[in-house]
Amino acid sequence: MRILIENVSVFQEGDILNNKNILIENDIIKEISEDKNFEKIDYVIEGKNKIALPGLVNTHTHLAMTLFRGFADDLPLKEWLEEKIWPQEAKLTAEDVYWGSLLGICEMIKGGTIAFADMYFFMDEVAKAVSESGVKASLSVGMIGVSGNENEILNRGVNFAQNWHNAENGRIKVMLAPHAPYTCPPSFLEKVINKAVEMNLSIHTHLSETYLEVENIKNIYGLTPVRLMDRIGLFNVPVLAAHCVFVDDEEIEILSEKGVGVAHNPQSNLKLASGVAPVKKMVEKRVKIGLGTDGPASNNNLDLWEEIRLVATLHKGVEKDPVCIPAKEALNMATKNGMEILGFENSGIIKEGYKADLILVNINKPHFYPRHNLISHLVYSALSSDVDTVIVDGKVLMEKRELKILDEEKIMFEAEKRAFDLIKKR
Amino acid sequence: MRILIENVSVFQEGDILNNKNILIENDIIKEISEDKNFEKIDYVIEGKNKIALPGLVNTHTHLAMTLFRGFADDLPLKEWLEEKIWPQEAKLTAEDVYWGSLLGICEMIKGGTIAFADMYFFMDEVAKAVSESGVKASLSVGMIGVSGNENEILNRGVNFAQNWHNAENGRIKVMLAPHAPYTCPPSFLEKVINKAVEMNLSIHTHLSETYLEVENIKNIYGLTPVRLMDRIGLFNVPVLAAHCVFVDDEEIEILSEKGVGVAHNPQSNLKLASGVAPVKKMVEKRVKIGLGTDGPASNNNLDLWEEIRLVATLHKGVEKDPVCIPAKEALNMATKNGMEILGFENSGIIKEGYKADLILVNINKPHFYPRHNLISHLVYSALSSDVDTVIVDGKVLMEKRELKILDEEKIMFEAEKRAFDLIKKR
Repeated sequence: MRILIENVSVFQEGDILNNKNILIENDIIKEISEDKNFEKIDYVIEGKNKIALPGLVNTHTHLAMTLFRGFADDLPLKEWLEEKIWPQEAKLTAEDVYWGSLLGICEMIKGGTIAFADMYFFMDEVAKAVSESGVKASLSVGMIGVSGNENEILNRGVNFAQNWHNAENGRIKVMLAPHAPYTCPPSFLEKVINKAVEMNLSIHTHLSETYLEVENIKNIYGLTPVRLMDRIGLFNVPVLAAHCVFVDDEEIEILSEKGVGVAHNPQSNLKLASGVAPVKKMVEKRVKIGLGTDGPASNNNLDLWEEIRLVATLHKGVEKDPVCIPAKEALNMATKNGMEILGFENSGIIKEGYKADLILVNINKPHFYPRHNLISHLVYSALSSDVDTVIVDGKVLMEKRELKILDEEKIMFEAEKRAFDLIKKR
Repeated sequence: MRILIENVSVFQEGDILNNKNILIENDIIKEISEDKNFEKIDYVIEGKNKIALPGLVNTHTHLAMTLFRGFADDLPLKEWLEEKIWPQEAKLTAEDVYWGSLLGICEMIKGGTIAFADMYFFMDEVAKAVSESGVKASLSVGMIGVSGNENEILNRGVNFAQNWHNAENGRIKVMLAPHAPYTCPPSFLEKVINKAVEMNLSIHTHLSETYLEVENIKNIYGLTPVRLMDRIGLFNVPVLAAHCVFVDDEEIEILSEKGVGVAHNPQSNLKLASGVAPVKKMVEKRVKIGLGTDGPASNNNLDLWEEIRLVATLHKGVEKDPVCIPAKEALNMATKNGMEILGFENSGIIKEGYKADLILVNINKPHFYPRHNLISHLVYSALSSDVDTVIVDGKVLMEKRELKILDEEKIMFEAEKRAFDLIKKR
């Protein structure tokens, strides 16, 4: 299969190159050139008035929580979790998780997000949804170490990894996911780390999300969460750490030195009143930062463009520094950094020889004019609905905003029905 | 002209009422009912899968600055203003402002914003653009008191008010606009206040936007900006004060007692590194708060939905209070409060006898499912591109996302051409 994208502007190495032609052969970007006289083209996509951008990466979410979108907002954290979310989650079935995940994948594709990191349960169903829909994902069974027999809990994560890691021609990756320092004691974490080393897997975990977490961990172990994880040896394997809202200068050094990938979820951190992560300092210390939406019950959408805009504006305002996190940096977080953190090689950049993982953004709209600086416009003005076309591993998942593989109407209907039934269920 | 909107969900008094029918007669909402057997209907709009919401109100912008969208970002404030924005503004012609304003109005209508407060120059051109496009606006000539003869400066604002206040059957309002405390000395402000009283006009001004402004005003006058304005008597007339980022508890009391309308511009305040206004406290003290985008050179779009989402999340995160500024409050700021602050009576609510100023939001999209709580979805999930239909004074300005009066393509082309020519001009 050879696809030609004609006359398109391309975001490459922090710059926009105009009037290029992109030749895709099977799952690979074969050529990017001025010339467009290629032979044997199966399919042509007009790229005029569009920017080709690496597909966006959501480095932290709980996809099936789409089912709880809008179910409980504007509540204190304890009440939200204990009285609203947990009781509903306890009733979830595998099929619910499947349809909730598909709903989330629909929404992500429509907004140009082509890869995501998910930690939840009934993960076989999430993997099935990923497999069918054509997107990329790094999936993991959320392991609550304190909820029962440690070995049994670990085995759930390990079995899932054995079944799915590198499935679908590498489109699916698996990580081991100890849920958080406050739900996983050091004894359990050590087992997880050993298993990760043995199986050559990365680890996905929540880390230093709230002030309360930090205080509790300090009270129990005499160390902050990041220091505790460092001492246990967590960072000796590749780690995707979600949130890192409360980290001091020394902890930022640790995250940097150990090459930890941080999933920054600015909108969720604001909405749940956690706070604002010290991203300016993390960037200065070269911590690898990706962007995430967190679950749709705490955001409430899966829109990476909002996170891009937020990371580029929030820290300017809070740090009183109008030059921190410039537009290019924000775009890199949402693309290149994200793919790297999720473990997808040869993706996250539009480059010959790389995977054909890209989106086309329609810029023929009032908010993209005048076109003084398209990178600024992508960060400070664009919307997820500006995404016109989505291509993953050379396969067209959306064109002219129409989903090519998933049945959007059916998925919206099924997911809603299941969500309503779930709430009613005793 | 009688328009019927059938089978629509209506946002009314903080609630969503399902399956209603709205009869519009000329510029008025004639009836909202279960029944739809009305006679002599000229035009029917299908409202299924849509929410009728009062049109959004942008309480502070400088519309023609669309021409500078993306021209200068990620720069220190001084360099941004003195080296980038001001030199370009000095070259602006009346026609530039006309086309820049039309571009901004296109963008606003497409995002469901039907009214705005603008302070700039060449305001006759902005008024012309408003007049032609069908939206509502409160317009004012920005008066820099220190830039020449005080009476001449004031007369520009007064003449504009004489020509345009209540024009287009009340669709255009005019305020007097002393630019800011640091550009308008008390002697000038007193003249403006007297004139406002004499002409029964409101005043639009920038107030306490930056820490530097507050420090400078304190150094010169021995009082903070809000206290200085209070002592001069500014708040004895109705005032629209943009920003109010740096206001202490006593100043918040003053703003509340004097009924000052505050235009909160969260995204601009973040991007320009001004800071975060104490909106939680202002709400507690019942200060009248509307939302604004500020000019498109400092935002960089005119998207009120982003400001709605930001006001409902930012303050939760910064104040560490997950229940402050709940969804309904954010929607009220962007609708009812905004219209009140701009001086439009009988608007901002969908109610029988009120002006037919409303928008239809298409909720048949993945990010609106499941429909646990449509008010939450409007605030935490909706996008400006979800707006399907825009009606102002009973006139359809957009339907199925197609502009009915303005020529979008022509305006994008003209505005961009002028912006590029302007930058080249010496």
